Amino acid sequence: MVIEKLRNTVRDIPDFPKPGILFKDITPVLMDPVLCRELVDEFIRRIGDVRVDAIAAVESRGFLFGMSLADKLNVPFIPVRKAGKLPYKTVSYSYDLEYGSAVVEMHEDAVKPGWNVLIHDDLLATGGTAIAAAELIKSQGANIAGFAFLIELTFLDGKPRLEKYSDHIINLISY
Amino acid sequence: MVIEKLRNTVRDIPDFPKPGILFKDITPVLMDPVLCRELVDEFIRRIGDVRVDAIAAVESRGFLFGMSLADKLNVPFIPVRKAGKLPYKTVSYSYDLEYGSAVVEMHEDAVKPGWNVLIHDDLLATGGTAIAAAELIKSQGANIAGFAFLIELTFLDGKPRLEKYSDHIINLISY
Repeated sequence: MVIEKLRNTVRDIPDFPKPGILFKDITPVLMDPVLCRELVDEFIRRIGDVRVDAIAAVESRGFLFGMSLADKLNVPFIPVRKAGKLPYKTVSYSYDLEYGSAVVEMHEDAVKPGWNVLIHDDLLATGGTAIAAAELIKSQGANIAGFAFLIELTFLDGKPRLEKYSDHIINLISY
Repeated sequence: MVIEKLRNTVRDIPDFPKPGILFKDITPVLMDPVLCRELVDEFIRRIGDVRVDAIAAVESRGFLFGMSLADKLNVPFIPVRKAGKLPYKTVSYSYDLEYGSAVVEMHEDAVKPGWNVLIHDDLLATGGTAIAAAELIKSQGANIAGFAFLIELTFLDGKPRLEKYSDHIINLISY
């Protein structure tokens, strides 16, 4: 029910950010506070009894539901941000994009060794950003409890790339 | 009590993002889910019986508590983002920074005429970004219900600049 509602609310935007790409716009979802709560509840249901000591989420759209997940699980929220945004001592990870590369950072005191950290973002595409977050978390001696996405773009084959980090991969809808 | 806890949890980072600036780091706050809930409850208490039809929040740190506020008030969440990030038709507003300028955007269908929109961000500095958000909201025929910030940097005189939009300005702690 919530899945069908999510699917009917996400909006297709053709040719964004460039010609030929059909962008999945979640802003209509954000207009519906009841649906937002239902989505968070669905994530929590699917996380089940997996131990989660913290939620890490990727700037910017990952912040939206990431804080709600951390609230519901009563665990810390760890922001993973673009280079130069976090003010304290950071660890950073560089990864390839279609053209060029990107760098994400995490505060070096954000995770404790041995923690099981669930990584959240709104969308799973190639998995590059989620892998970068996973590598940052592992570099500090913590474990990957799993991944949680609203949307998976199946044709970009992100999920198989994430399986080496955790086989607990939640995606509410797939295209 | 919550205010004292917030004040004791925000971390000072000297010389970020450049020499001479003492940055207020809220990431330790995000590590404490109980404090996060108490902060949202405090915002809701201070909003009181002001009519709020939607929360607008500014990318990226405004997204963190903005979604919680929208959830608690059971109203839509409107993301205000940097130029080029929102996929649908947008309205944009350019404003001056210390060096150069910045542009923020909002989807043109994000607010309905006559709505009373509360603007949230983590920090009130000069007020430039909050004013940009207010102008975007007003440009679509909606009203400013007020502003809500975790932190105000009093010496930057942002608050007097916001008073022409609304005199309902909440800031939990001031420096």
